[in-house]
Amino acid sequence: MVKPVGATRLRKAHFGYNPAMAAKIIDGNALAASIKEQVRARSQQLKAEGRVVHLAALLVGNTPAAEMYAKRQAEACADVGIDYELVKLPADARVEQANATIDRLNQDESISGIMVHQPLPQHIDSTALLARISAVKDVEGVSPASLGHLLLGTPLNVPCTALAAVECILSTGVSVRGAEVVVVGASEIVGKPAALLLSDQRATVSICRSATRDLAGHTRRAQILIAAVGKPHFIRAEHVAEGTVVIDVGINRVTLPDGSKKTLGDVEFESVAPKASFITPVPGGVGPLTVAMLLRNAVRSSAAGQKQH
Amino acid sequence: MVKPVGATRLRKAHFGYNPAMAAKIIDGNALAASIKEQVRARSQQLKAEGRVVHLAALLVGNTPAAEMYAKRQAEACADVGIDYELVKLPADARVEQANATIDRLNQDESISGIMVHQPLPQHIDSTALLARISAVKDVEGVSPASLGHLLLGTPLNVPCTALAAVECILSTGVSVRGAEVVVVGASEIVGKPAALLLSDQRATVSICRSATRDLAGHTRRAQILIAAVGKPHFIRAEHVAEGTVVIDVGINRVTLPDGSKKTLGDVEFESVAPKASFITPVPGGVGPLTVAMLLRNAVRSSAAGQKQH
Repeated sequence: MVKPVGATRLRKAHFGYNPAMAAKIIDGNALAASIKEQVRARSQQLKAEGRVVHLAALLVGNTPAAEMYAKRQAEACADVGIDYELVKLPADARVEQANATIDRLNQDESISGIMVHQPLPQHIDSTALLARISAVKDVEGVSPASLGHLLLGTPLNVPCTALAAVECILSTGVSVRGAEVVVVGASEIVGKPAALLLSDQRATVSICRSATRDLAGHTRRAQILIAAVGKPHFIRAEHVAEGTVVIDVGINRVTLPDGSKKTLGDVEFESVAPKASFITPVPGGVGPLTVAMLLRNAVRSSAAGQKQH
Repeated sequence: MVKPVGATRLRKAHFGYNPAMAAKIIDGNALAASIKEQVRARSQQLKAEGRVVHLAALLVGNTPAAEMYAKRQAEACADVGIDYELVKLPADARVEQANATIDRLNQDESISGIMVHQPLPQHIDSTALLARISAVKDVEGVSPASLGHLLLGTPLNVPCTALAAVECILSTGVSVRGAEVVVVGASEIVGKPAALLLSDQRATVSICRSATRDLAGHTRRAQILIAAVGKPHFIRAEHVAEGTVVIDVGINRVTLPDGSKKTLGDVEFESVAPKASFITPVPGGVGPLTVAMLLRNAVRSSAAGQKQH
């Protein structure tokens, strides 16, 4: 039996085996809707105060997929009252052109947030371009300065997927302080930032990776488990103790034997859910929250940037 | 029986209990001397190529202790052929003055590295001032951009104490890949950077902190243990398994019952050394290496900065 969990905080879960306990599904769509509602109220408030709430997204080149993604993003921004502007450069734009565009957006006081659509054409160094974005306007939280502020424990903007994973954990009401957290996957935009965020909340955090020798030994000790490896059904029942909070960051498109396509998480939901206290589904878990976190960063950037004036 | 270990690499240690194994002391002074020798050769080479190897250190206010420290630093730089300049501001210098000084040093092409003596007067926000230092010149590796590059896995300069701890580990010849590393203490300049560096070298890293519930349970699983909590003799024999590599970052000045002062590490050396495979003493372990790492960062900054021209 699984019960849906929305934006409401539940009673503190007790760790350890409890035969009466069934996994509660963390409903990412419901949580995202609740956060978007807060973002909508905040952007209205900021605009009423005469502040700019304006996200500029840089798209270099244009594939149908990127155009579609940008269109959905424009709709998501419109939905919560964030002005959105797609800044396009041709696929063969020179590095200097891309740099100059970021510099212009940094200086433009009518822009409160900046993001860059990925992937960039191969001739443009993504890290170097992102490093140009001013930390206050970096709504994706991916520039070196943004990540450095996170490491310093004084975060401005934090990578959205890591925030989404942490938001899922907080929605359960389970106490993070002193909890055993295991993060599987040490990526720059999920594993490492999530580990730092949860360590700052006084969890004991272990970061496992492909070279980890006794993965199940680690994951079975977890009270909170974040799977962010990008391998379909990598985490199975044998990796998880009874009562664990399981956060699945994976979004893996796979082709089934019959030729159809399906999106699978890093966690084998069917076998893990009966043991978990809380679990995110894929799709419908971390994914929708990631978009909501970008919007929340955008209003935060707006408020933070204009505090500085 | 303890045997000194210098800069030479030893055979790969095998983990697990070995009654014939006695702790080998990691000799930080010998390692530091070896690294200074490399730095000396590198700075000579850079200068022969017409490059600037010039460290500027900002000192705001002047206590006798800070002046003494700066004098020792000048000597350490002179010893390895790094030009050193102490830039002094009065204790009541305005924030704008300190900012302008950093900006000037950033732009000055005759300066290849910048550092700031701590502590700063209370009216100056240390994080904000350090954030102004250009990432290439930030020899202490403590600016948000430097720490962000570390998190991104593309480190420029890394905090010296974290580097020193990792250097001690590498000196043992023990393989880091897949090793169980436990870091006790989650500070911005030691615990977190050391955890990231070792995770990037494919270790499984756990970060424990004061809220950790079963500290000994974690530390006894460690094959490599870094103690960086700032509490004298916090790690004792019961925290350590046989064969562990123990790195003690603590430098705690304590007053003994007879009124005399002594420097103690975070590790109770006497009880832990007989179980450890390798151990750093305090003093004479991580400490001397930290200074050597600053000098190494200084020549790296010099080389990196001038590659960009």
